[in-house]
Amino acid sequence: VISDNALVRARFHLPETDASGHGLLTGDEAGHLTRVLRLGVGAEIDVFDGRGGMFHARVVDVGRPGVRVAVLSAMSPAPEPAIRVTLVMSILKGDKMDAVVRDATMMGVSAVQPIVASRSEISLAAVTRAQRVERWRRIAVASVKQCGRAVVPVVETAVDLRTWMAHRSDDAVLALTEPAGGEGAPLAQVPRCERVHLLVGPEGGWTADETAVFATAGFRAIALGGRTLRADAAPLVAMAAVFEAWGGW
Amino acid sequence: VISDNALVRARFHLPETDASGHGLLTGDEAGHLTRVLRLGVGAEIDVFDGRGGMFHARVVDVGRPGVRVAVLSAMSPAPEPAIRVTLVMSILKGDKMDAVVRDATMMGVSAVQPIVASRSEISLAAVTRAQRVERWRRIAVASVKQCGRAVVPVVETAVDLRTWMAHRSDDAVLALTEPAGGEGAPLAQVPRCERVHLLVGPEGGWTADETAVFATAGFRAIALGGRTLRADAAPLVAMAAVFEAWGGW
Repeated sequence: VISDNALVRARFHLPETDASGHGLLTGDEAGHLTRVLRLGVGAEIDVFDGRGGMFHARVVDVGRPGVRVAVLSAMSPAPEPAIRVTLVMSILKGDKMDAVVRDATMMGVSAVQPIVASRSEISLAAVTRAQRVERWRRIAVASVKQCGRAVVPVVETAVDLRTWMAHRSDDAVLALTEPAGGEGAPLAQVPRCERVHLLVGPEGGWTADETAVFATAGFRAIALGGRTLRADAAPLVAMAAVFEAWGGW
Repeated sequence: VISDNALVRARFHLPETDASGHGLLTGDEAGHLTRVLRLGVGAEIDVFDGRGGMFHARVVDVGRPGVRVAVLSAMSPAPEPAIRVTLVMSILKGDKMDAVVRDATMMGVSAVQPIVASRSEISLAAVTRAQRVERWRRIAVASVKQCGRAVVPVVETAVDLRTWMAHRSDDAVLALTEPAGGEGAPLAQVPRCERVHLLVGPEGGWTADETAVFATAGFRAIALGGRTLRADAAPLVAMAAVFEAWGGW
Protein backbone atom coordinates (compact mmCIF):
# COMPACT_ATOMS: atom_id res chain seq x y z
CA VAL A 1 0.00 0.00 0.00
CA ILE A 2 1.61 3.17 -1.21
CA SER A 3 2.03 5.85 1.38
CA ASP A 4 0.59 9.30 0.92
CA ASN A 5 2.65 11.00 -1.79
CA ALA A 6 2.45 14.33 -0.01
CA LEU A 7 4.54 12.88 2.80
CA VAL A 8 7.29 11.46 0.59
CA ARG A 9 9.95 13.67 -0.95
CA ALA A 10 11.02 12.94 -4.50
CA ARG A 11 13.68 10.23 -4.66
CA PHE A 12 16.54 10.15 -7.13
CA HIS A 13 19.13 7.56 -8.03
CA LEU A 14 22.61 8.94 -7.36
CA PRO A 15 25.11 6.10 -7.76
CA GLU A 16 28.27 8.14 -7.04
CA THR A 17 29.32 10.94 -4.72
CA ASP A 18 32.75 12.51 -4.27
CA ALA A 19 34.70 12.81 -1.03
CA SER A 20 32.98 16.11 -0.21
CA GLY A 21 29.53 14.47 -0.44
CA HIS A 22 28.56 15.96 -3.79
CA GLY A 23 27.24 14.12 -6.80
CA LEU A 24 25.68 14.66 -10.22
CA LEU A 25 22.23 13.54 -11.36
CA THR A 26 22.25 12.99 -15.11
CA GLY A 27 19.97 11.72 -17.88
CA ASP A 28 16.47 10.65 -16.83
CA GLU A 29 17.09 11.53 -13.20
CA ALA A 30 18.11 15.11 -14.01
CA GLY A 31 15.23 15.48 -16.47
CA HIS A 32 12.72 14.22 -13.94
CA LEU A 33 13.93 16.73 -11.36
CA THR A 34 14.04 19.80 -13.60
CA ARG A 35 11.39 19.22 -16.26
CA VAL A 36 8.80 16.98 -14.59
CA LEU A 37 8.98 18.16 -10.98
CA ARG A 38 10.27 21.65 -11.90
CA LEU A 39 12.69 21.70 -8.99
CA GLY A 40 15.81 23.89 -8.94
CA VAL A 41 18.69 25.10 -6.78
CA GLY A 42 17.88 24.84 -3.09
CA ALA A 43 15.31 22.07 -3.47
CA GLU A 44 15.54 19.30 -0.85
CA ILE A 45 15.35 15.79 -2.22
CA ASP A 46 16.13 12.22 -1.19
CA VAL A 47 18.81 10.27 -3.03
CA PHE A 48 19.80 6.59 -2.94
CA ASP A 49 23.00 5.06 -4.21
CA GLY A 50 21.44 1.75 -5.27
CA ARG A 51 23.70 -0.20 -2.90
CA GLY A 52 21.79 0.44 0.33
CA GLY A 53 22.54 4.09 1.10
CA MET A 54 19.76 6.70 1.23
CA PHE A 55 20.30 10.36 2.06
CA HIS A 56 18.67 13.74 2.35
CA ALA A 57 20.27 16.06 -0.19
CA ARG A 58 19.96 19.56 -1.61
CA VAL A 59 20.24 20.76 -5.18
CA VAL A 60 23.24 23.10 -5.45
CA ASP A 61 23.54 23.63 -9.19
CA VAL A 62 21.57 22.95 -12.36
CA GLY A 63 23.63 23.02 -15.52
CA ARG A 64 24.67 21.41 -18.75
CA PRO A 65 26.37 18.32 -17.23
CA GLY A 66 23.44 17.62 -14.90
CA VAL A 67 22.00 18.46 -11.51
CA ARG A 68 24.62 18.83 -8.79
CA VAL A 69 23.46 17.86 -5.31
CA ALA A 70 25.03 17.99 -1.84
CA VAL A 71 24.33 15.13 0.54
CA LEU A 72 23.02 16.43 3.89
CA SER A 73 22.35 13.43 6.14
CA ALA A 74 21.79 9.68 6.07
CA MET A 75 18.27 8.25 6.10
CA SER A 76 16.91 4.77 6.91
CA PRO A 77 15.75 3.09 3.74
CA ALA A 78 13.24 0.24 3.67
CA PRO A 79 14.96 -2.87 5.06
CA GLU A 80 16.14 -5.54 2.67
CA PRO A 81 14.70 -9.08 2.97
CA ALA A 82 16.56 -11.63 5.10
CA ILE A 83 16.51 -14.07 2.17
CA ARG A 84 18.42 -13.16 -0.98
CA VAL A 85 16.22 -14.16 -3.91
CA THR A 86 17.49 -14.18 -7.47
CA LEU A 87 14.55 -14.46 -9.85
CA VAL A 88 15.46 -16.49 -12.91
CA MET A 89 12.54 -15.52 -15.10
CA SER A 90 11.54 -16.78 -18.52
CA ILE A 91 10.94 -13.67 -20.58
CA LEU A 92 7.21 -13.06 -21.06
CA LYS A 93 5.46 -11.43 -23.98
CA GLY A 94 4.80 -7.73 -24.33
CA ASP A 95 4.80 -5.62 -21.20
CA LYS A 96 4.22 -8.53 -18.83
CA MET A 97 7.93 -8.82 -18.19
CA ASP A 98 8.00 -5.12 -17.25
CA ALA A 99 5.41 -5.87 -14.57
CA VAL A 100 7.43 -8.84 -13.33
CA VAL A 101 10.58 -6.72 -12.90
CA ARG A 102 8.59 -3.95 -11.21
CA ASP A 103 6.85 -6.32 -8.79
CA ALA A 104 9.90 -8.42 -7.98
CA THR A 105 11.83 -5.23 -7.18
CA MET A 106 9.02 -4.06 -4.89
CA MET A 107 9.11 -7.42 -3.12
CA GLY A 108 12.83 -7.09 -2.47
CA VAL A 109 14.44 -9.27 -5.12
CA SER A 110 18.25 -9.20 -5.14
CA ALA A 111 18.73 -9.88 -8.83
CA VAL A 112 16.71 -10.74 -11.92
CA GLN A 113 18.14 -13.10 -14.53
CA PRO A 114 15.98 -13.02 -17.68
CA ILE A 115 16.17 -16.28 -19.61
CA VAL A 116 14.76 -17.74 -22.81
CA ALA A 117 13.26 -21.21 -22.31
CA SER A 118 11.93 -23.64 -24.93
CA ARG A 119 8.42 -22.23 -24.86
CA SER A 120 9.39 -18.56 -24.51
CA GLU A 121 7.71 -16.65 -27.31
CA ILE A 122 10.64 -14.31 -27.82
CA SER A 123 14.21 -14.81 -29.04
CA LEU A 124 17.41 -13.50 -27.46
CA ALA A 125 18.05 -11.54 -30.67
CA ALA A 126 14.71 -9.75 -30.33
CA VAL A 127 15.41 -8.97 -26.66
CA THR A 128 18.75 -7.44 -27.61
CA ARG A 129 17.43 -5.52 -30.61
CA ALA A 130 14.62 -3.97 -28.57
CA GLN A 131 17.03 -3.11 -25.72
CA ARG A 132 14.67 -4.82 -23.32
CA VAL A 133 17.28 -5.36 -20.59
CA GLU A 134 18.06 -1.63 -20.50
CA ARG A 135 14.33 -0.99 -20.20
CA TRP A 136 14.02 -3.47 -17.30
CA ARG A 137 16.94 -1.77 -15.53
CA ARG A 138 15.12 1.56 -15.73
CA ILE A 139 11.95 -0.09 -14.43
CA ALA A 140 13.88 -1.57 -11.50
CA VAL A 141 15.14 1.93 -10.56
CA ALA A 142 11.62 3.37 -10.82
CA SER A 143 10.22 0.59 -8.65
CA VAL A 144 12.94 1.10 -6.04
CA LYS A 145 11.81 4.72 -5.75
CA GLN A 146 8.21 3.71 -5.17
CA CYS A 147 8.79 0.98 -2.62
CA GLY A 148 11.37 2.85 -0.55
CA ARG A 149 14.35 0.52 -1.04
CA ALA A 150 17.83 1.90 -1.44
CA VAL A 151 19.11 -1.19 -3.23
CA VAL A 152 18.63 -1.47 -6.98
CA PRO A 153 18.46 -5.15 -7.96
CA VAL A 154 20.81 -6.23 -10.70
CA VAL A 155 19.06 -7.07 -13.97
CA GLU A 156 21.43 -9.44 -15.72
CA THR A 157 21.89 -9.74 -19.45
CA ALA A 158 19.36 -12.16 -20.94
CA VAL A 159 20.66 -15.63 -21.78
CA ASP A 160 19.09 -18.90 -22.85
CA LEU A 161 18.20 -21.46 -20.21
CA ARG A 162 21.02 -23.79 -21.22
CA THR A 163 23.63 -21.05 -20.82
CA TRP A 164 22.28 -20.08 -17.42
CA MET A 165 22.33 -23.73 -16.31
CA ALA A 166 25.99 -24.01 -17.33
CA HIS A 167 27.16 -20.85 -15.55
CA ARG A 168 24.89 -20.55 -12.51
CA SER A 169 26.18 -20.23 -8.94
CA ASP A 170 25.73 -23.09 -6.47
CA ASP A 171 22.77 -21.45 -4.69
CA ALA A 172 19.77 -23.72 -4.16
CA VAL A 173 17.24 -23.51 -6.99
CA LEU A 174 13.48 -23.67 -6.55
CA ALA A 175 11.74 -24.43 -9.85
CA LEU A 176 8.10 -23.39 -9.86
CA THR A 177 5.94 -26.05 -11.50
CA GLU A 178 2.39 -26.16 -12.77
CA PRO A 179 -0.26 -27.87 -10.66
CA ALA A 180 -1.25 -30.12 -13.59
CA GLY A 181 2.21 -31.72 -13.60
CA GLY A 182 1.81 -32.85 -10.02
CA GLU A 183 5.58 -33.14 -9.41
CA GLY A 184 5.88 -30.03 -7.26
CA ALA A 185 6.20 -30.23 -3.48
CA PRO A 186 4.91 -27.65 -1.00
CA LEU A 187 7.51 -25.06 -0.08
CA ALA A 188 7.03 -26.04 3.57
CA GLN A 189 8.94 -29.27 2.80
CA VAL A 190 12.01 -27.44 1.52
CA PRO A 191 14.76 -26.54 4.03
CA ARG A 192 15.33 -22.83 4.55
CA CYS A 193 18.11 -21.21 2.49
CA GLU A 194 19.64 -17.77 2.98
CA ARG A 195 20.15 -17.42 -0.74
CA VAL A 196 17.94 -18.99 -3.34
CA HIS A 197 17.36 -18.91 -7.07
CA LEU A 198 13.70 -18.95 -8.01
CA LEU A 199 13.11 -20.32 -11.50
CA VAL A 200 9.81 -19.40 -13.20
CA GLY A 201 8.69 -20.64 -16.60
CA PRO A 202 7.03 -18.93 -19.58
CA GLU A 203 3.30 -18.72 -20.36
CA GLY A 204 3.39 -22.19 -21.92
CA GLY A 205 5.18 -23.76 -18.95
CA TRP A 206 8.29 -25.91 -18.90
CA THR A 207 8.77 -28.76 -21.35
CA ALA A 208 9.17 -32.32 -20.06
CA ASP A 209 12.83 -32.16 -21.13
CA GLU A 210 13.37 -29.03 -19.07
CA THR A 211 11.79 -30.44 -15.90
CA ALA A 212 13.88 -33.61 -16.34
CA VAL A 213 17.06 -31.53 -16.56
CA PHE A 214 16.01 -29.59 -13.45
CA ALA A 215 15.52 -32.82 -11.50
CA THR A 216 18.94 -34.10 -12.59
CA ALA A 217 20.52 -30.80 -11.52
CA GLY A 218 19.01 -31.16 -8.03
CA PHE A 219 16.52 -28.31 -8.32
CA ARG A 220 13.56 -28.47 -5.94
CA ALA A 221 10.26 -28.52 -7.85
CA ILE A 222 7.73 -26.53 -5.89
CA ALA A 223 3.98 -26.10 -6.30
CA LEU A 224 1.91 -23.23 -4.96
CA GLY A 225 -1.55 -24.71 -4.62
CA GLY A 226 -3.74 -26.32 -7.23
CA ARG A 227 -4.88 -23.30 -9.22
CA THR A 228 -3.02 -22.34 -12.39
CA LEU A 229 -1.17 -19.07 -11.78
CA ARG A 230 -0.64 -16.58 -14.57
CA ALA A 231 3.06 -16.51 -15.50
CA ASP A 232 3.33 -12.80 -14.72
CA ALA A 233 1.81 -13.20 -11.25
CA ALA A 234 3.75 -16.36 -10.33
CA PRO A 235 7.02 -14.63 -9.27
CA LEU A 236 5.19 -12.30 -6.87
CA VAL A 237 3.24 -15.18 -5.33
CA ALA A 238 6.33 -17.36 -5.06
CA MET A 239 8.44 -14.64 -3.43
CA ALA A 240 5.70 -13.96 -0.87
CA ALA A 241 5.53 -17.68 -0.09
CA VAL A 242 9.32 -17.95 0.27
CA PHE A 243 9.50 -14.95 2.61
CA GLU A 244 6.60 -16.22 4.72
CA ALA A 245 7.89 -19.81 4.86
CA TRP A 246 11.46 -18.86 5.77
CA GLY A 247 10.99 -15.66 7.73
CA GLY A 248 12.49 -13.64 4.95
CA TRP A 249 10.31 -10.53 5.06
CA VAL B 1 2.07 -20.59 -14.95
CA ILE B 2 -0.60 -21.16 -17.54
CA SER B 3 -0.72 -24.63 -18.99
CA ASP B 4 -0.39 -25.16 -22.71
CA ASN B 5 -3.59 -23.87 -24.28
CA ALA B 6 -3.59 -26.67 -26.80
CA LEU B 7 -4.14 -29.16 -23.97
CA VAL B 8 -7.04 -27.32 -22.37
CA ARG B 9 -10.52 -27.46 -23.83
CA ALA B 10 -12.58 -24.30 -23.77
CA ARG B 11 -14.38 -23.79 -20.45
CA PHE B 12 -17.84 -22.28 -20.07
CA HIS B 13 -19.84 -21.16 -17.07
CA LEU B 14 -23.09 -23.18 -16.91
CA PRO B 15 -24.78 -22.38 -13.60
CA GLU B 16 -27.87 -24.59 -14.10
CA THR B 17 -28.65 -27.99 -15.60
CA ASP B 18 -31.97 -29.85 -15.65
CA ALA B 19 -32.63 -33.35 -14.30
CA SER B 20 -31.56 -34.89 -17.64
CA GLY B 21 -28.16 -33.18 -17.49
CA HIS B 22 -28.87 -30.52 -20.08
CA GLY B 23 -28.30 -26.79 -19.74
CA LEU B 24 -28.27 -23.58 -21.74
CA LEU B 25 -25.31 -21.26 -22.26
CA THR B 26 -26.56 -17.72 -22.82
CA GLY B 27 -25.20 -14.21 -23.26
CA ASP B 28 -21.43 -13.83 -23.24
CA GLU B 29 -20.86 -17.55 -22.79
CA ALA B 30 -22.93 -18.45 -25.86
CA GLY B 31 -21.33 -15.67 -27.89
CA HIS B 32 -17.84 -16.81 -26.93
CA LEU B 33 -18.61 -20.35 -28.04
CA THR B 34 -20.26 -19.56 -31.37
CA ARG B 35 -18.70 -16.30 -32.53
CA VAL B 36 -15.21 -16.27 -30.97
CA LEU B 37 -14.34 -19.97 -30.97
CA ARG B 38 -16.70 -20.81 -33.89
CA LEU B 39 -17.81 -24.03 -32.26
CA GLY B 40 -21.15 -25.69 -33.10
CA VAL B 41 -23.25 -28.81 -32.58
CA GLY B 42 -21.12 -31.80 -31.59
CA ALA B 43 -18.27 -29.74 -30.10
CA GLU B 44 -16.89 -31.09 -26.82
CA ILE B 45 -16.35 -28.50 -24.14
CA ASP B 46 -15.84 -28.25 -20.39
CA VAL B 47 -18.43 -26.57 -18.21
CA PHE B 48 -18.39 -25.53 -14.56
CA ASP B 49 -21.35 -24.61 -12.41
CA GLY B 50 -19.52 -22.02 -10.31
CA ARG B 51 -20.22 -23.96 -7.09
CA GLY B 52 -17.51 -26.60 -7.44
CA GLY B 53 -18.80 -28.85 -10.23
CA MET B 54 -16.88 -29.24 -13.52
CA PHE B 55 -17.95 -31.50 -16.36
CA HIS B 56 -17.19 -32.63 -19.88
CA ALA B 57 -20.12 -31.66 -22.07
CA ARG B 58 -21.21 -31.65 -25.70
CA VAL B 59 -23.02 -28.98 -27.68
CA VAL B 60 -26.40 -30.39 -28.81
CA ASP B 61 -28.16 -27.33 -30.22
CA VAL B 62 -27.34 -23.77 -31.18
CA GLY B 63 -30.35 -21.51 -31.41
CA ARG B 64 -32.05 -18.28 -30.50
CA PRO B 65 -32.31 -18.89 -26.74
CA GLY B 66 -28.66 -19.95 -26.47
CA VAL B 67 -26.33 -22.92 -26.78
CA ARG B 68 -27.80 -26.14 -25.42
CA VAL B 69 -25.26 -28.59 -23.98
CA ALA B 70 -25.46 -32.12 -22.60
CA VAL B 71 -23.29 -32.99 -19.63
CA LEU B 72 -21.22 -36.11 -20.30
CA SER B 73 -19.08 -36.82 -17.23
CA ALA B 74 -17.69 -35.21 -14.11
CA MET B 75 -14.15 -33.78 -14.05
CA SER B 76 -11.81 -32.85 -11.22
CA PRO B 77 -11.49 -29.08 -11.02
CA ALA B 78 -8.54 -27.31 -9.40
CA PRO B 79 -8.81 -27.82 -5.64
CA GLU B 80 -10.07 -24.98 -3.48
CA PRO B 81 -7.78 -23.56 -0.77
CA ALA B 82 -8.05 -24.95 2.76
CA ILE B 83 -8.45 -21.41 4.11
CA ARG B 84 -11.53 -19.44 3.13
CA VAL B 85 -10.37 -15.89 2.42
CA THR B 86 -12.80 -13.03 1.92
CA LEU B 87 -10.94 -10.07 0.44
CA VAL B 88 -12.35 -6.79 1.74
CA MET B 89 -10.75 -4.48 -0.78
CA SER B 90 -10.77 -0.71 -0.96
CA ILE B 91 -11.77 0.12 -4.52
CA LEU B 92 -8.76 1.26 -6.54
CA LYS B 93 -8.65 3.70 -9.42
CA GLY B 94 -9.11 2.77 -13.08
CA ASP B 95 -8.51 -0.82 -14.08
CA LYS B 96 -6.38 -1.68 -11.04
CA MET B 97 -9.42 -3.07 -9.28
CA ASP B 98 -10.06 -5.33 -12.28
CA ALA B 99 -6.59 -6.79 -11.81
CA VAL B 100 -7.21 -7.28 -8.09
CA VAL B 101 -10.42 -9.26 -8.73
CA ARG B 102 -8.71 -11.29 -11.45
CA ASP B 103 -5.68 -12.12 -9.30
CA ALA B 104 -7.60 -12.83 -6.10
CA THR B 105 -9.84 -15.22 -8.03
CA MET B 106 -6.80 -16.99 -9.46
CA MET B 107 -5.38 -17.33 -5.94
CA GLY B 108 -8.57 -18.98 -4.71
CA VAL B 109 -10.42 -16.20 -2.92
CA SER B 110 -13.87 -17.18 -1.63
CA ALA B 111 -15.46 -13.76 -1.86
CA VAL B 112 -14.54 -10.17 -2.67
CA GLN B 113 -16.19 -7.32 -0.77
CA PRO B 114 -15.41 -4.00 -2.49
CA ILE B 115 -15.47 -1.10 -0.05
CA VAL B 116 -15.00 2.66 -0.14
CA ALA B 117 -12.59 3.91 2.55
CA SER B 118 -11.74 7.48 3.53
CA ARG B 119 -8.91 7.79 1.03
CA SER B 120 -10.58 5.85 -1.81
CA GLU B 121 -10.56 8.05 -4.88
CA ILE B 122 -13.97 6.90 -6.06
CA SER B 123 -17.49 7.25 -4.67
CA LEU B 124 -20.11 4.54 -4.25
CA ALA B 125 -22.33 6.49 -6.63
CA ALA B 126 -19.66 6.35 -9.34
CA VAL B 127 -19.16 2.62 -8.78
CA THR B 128 -22.90 2.03 -9.20
CA ARG B 129 -23.27 4.32 -12.20
CA ALA B 130 -20.40 2.63 -14.05
CA GLN B 131 -21.75 -0.84 -13.15
CA ARG B 132 -18.34 -1.74 -11.82
CA VAL B 133 -19.56 -4.62 -9.65
CA GLU B 134 -21.18 -6.30 -12.67
CA ARG B 135 -17.86 -5.89 -14.49
CA TRP B 136 -15.90 -7.44 -11.59
CA ARG B 137 -18.32 -10.40 -11.57
CA ARG B 138 -17.59 -11.02 -15.26
CA ILE B 139 -13.86 -10.74 -14.56
CA ALA B 140 -14.16 -13.29 -11.76
CA VAL B 141 -15.82 -15.77 -14.16
CA ALA B 142 -13.11 -15.18 -16.78
CA SER B 143 -10.38 -15.71 -14.20
CA VAL B 144 -12.01 -18.92 -12.96
CA LYS B 145 -11.79 -20.27 -16.51
CA GLN B 146 -8.08 -19.49 -16.74
CA CYS B 147 -7.02 -20.89 -13.40
CA GLY B 148 -9.05 -24.09 -13.56
CA ARG B 149 -11.31 -23.51 -10.55
CA ALA B 150 -14.94 -24.56 -10.64
CA VAL B 151 -15.97 -22.13 -7.92
CA VAL B 152 -16.80 -18.56 -8.88
CA PRO B 153 -16.10 -16.26 -5.94
CA VAL B 154 -18.93 -14.00 -4.88
CA VAL B 155 -18.31 -10.32 -5.66
CA GLU B 156 -20.49 -8.48 -3.18
CA THR B 157 -22.18 -5.16 -3.76
CA ALA B 158 -19.83 -2.28 -2.92
CA VAL B 159 -20.45 -0.55 0.40
CA ASP B 160 -18.62 2.03 2.45
CA LEU B 161 -16.19 0.88 5.14
CA ARG B 162 -18.51 1.94 7.96
CA THR B 163 -21.41 -0.11 6.55
CA TRP B 164 -19.21 -3.17 6.15
CA MET B 165 -17.94 -2.78 9.72
CA ALA B 166 -21.53 -2.69 11.00
CA HIS B 167 -22.71 -5.77 9.11
CA ARG B 168 -19.65 -8.02 8.85
CA SER B 169 -19.60 -11.64 10.02
CA ASP B 170 -17.59 -12.66 13.09
CA ASP B 171 -14.69 -14.11 11.06
CA ALA B 172 -11.24 -12.96 12.13
CA VAL B 173 -10.05 -9.87 10.25
CA LEU B 174 -6.46 -9.25 9.15
CA ALA B 175 -5.91 -5.58 8.31
CA LEU B 176 -2.90 -5.04 6.07
CA THR B 177 -0.89 -2.04 7.20
CA GLU B 178 1.87 0.05 5.69
CA PRO B 179 5.44 -0.51 6.83
CA ALA B 180 5.84 3.19 7.68
CA GLY B 181 3.12 2.95 10.33
CA GLY B 182 5.04 0.25 12.17
CA GLU B 183 1.96 -1.12 13.97
CA GLY B 184 1.69 -4.30 11.90
CA ALA B 185 2.82 -7.69 13.24
CA PRO B 186 4.23 -10.53 11.15
CA LEU B 187 1.57 -12.98 10.03
CA ALA B 188 3.57 -15.75 11.76
CA GLN B 189 2.40 -14.30 15.10
CA VAL B 190 -1.30 -14.64 14.22
CA PRO B 191 -3.08 -17.91 15.11
CA ARG B 192 -4.35 -19.92 12.14
CA CYS B 193 -7.99 -19.40 11.15
CA GLU B 194 -10.04 -21.55 8.77
CA ARG B 195 -11.93 -18.46 7.62
CA VAL B 196 -10.48 -15.01 7.49
CA HIS B 197 -11.33 -11.57 6.19
CA LEU B 198 -8.38 -9.78 4.63
CA LEU B 199 -8.77 -6.02 4.69
CA VAL B 200 -6.65 -4.02 2.20
CA GLY B 201 -6.58 -0.23 1.98
CA PRO B 202 -6.59 2.20 -0.94
CA GLU B 203 -3.58 3.76 -2.70
CA GLY B 204 -3.33 6.44 -0.02
CA GLY B 205 -3.48 3.94 2.85
CA TRP B 206 -5.73 3.92 5.90
CA THR B 207 -6.31 7.06 7.94
CA ALA B 208 -5.30 7.15 11.60
CA ASP B 209 -9.02 7.10 12.48
CA GLU B 210 -9.55 3.95 10.47
CA THR B 211 -6.64 2.07 12.02
CA ALA B 212 -7.86 3.12 15.48
CA VAL B 213 -11.33 1.74 14.71
CA PHE B 214 -9.75 -1.51 13.48
CA ALA B 215 -7.79 -1.91 16.70
CA THR B 216 -10.93 -1.33 18.78
CA ALA B 217 -12.79 -3.92 16.71
CA GLY B 218 -10.09 -6.50 17.44
CA PHE B 219 -8.67 -6.70 13.92
CA ARG B 220 -5.10 -8.01 13.65
CA ALA B 221 -2.84 -5.45 11.98
CA ILE B 222 -0.33 -7.32 9.82
CA ALA B 223 2.76 -6.16 7.97
CA LEU B 224 4.40 -7.89 5.02
CA GLY B 225 7.99 -6.75 5.18
CA GLY B 226 9.43 -3.28 5.10
CA ARG B 227 8.97 -2.36 1.46
CA THR B 228 5.92 -0.35 0.40
CA LEU B 229 3.66 -2.62 -1.67
CA ARG B 230 1.53 -1.21 -4.45
CA ALA B 231 -2.13 -1.34 -3.43
CA ASP B 232 -3.04 -3.51 -6.42
CA ALA B 233 -0.31 -6.06 -5.65
CA ALA B 234 -0.92 -6.18 -1.89
CA PRO B 235 -3.92 -8.60 -1.97
CA LEU B 236 -1.99 -11.15 -4.04
CA VAL B 237 1.04 -10.95 -1.75
CA ALA B 238 -1.10 -11.15 1.37
CA MET B 239 -3.08 -14.16 0.16
CA ALA B 240 0.12 -16.01 -0.72
CA ALA B 241 1.51 -15.25 2.74
CA VAL B 242 -1.70 -16.43 4.45
CA PHE B 243 -1.76 -19.69 2.49
CA GLU B 244 1.91 -20.36 3.15
CA ALA B 245 1.72 -19.45 6.86
CA TRP B 246 -1.39 -21.53 7.55
CA GLY B 247 -1.08 -24.38 5.08
CA GLY B 248 -3.96 -23.04 3.05
CA TRP B 249 -2.75 -23.76 -0.47
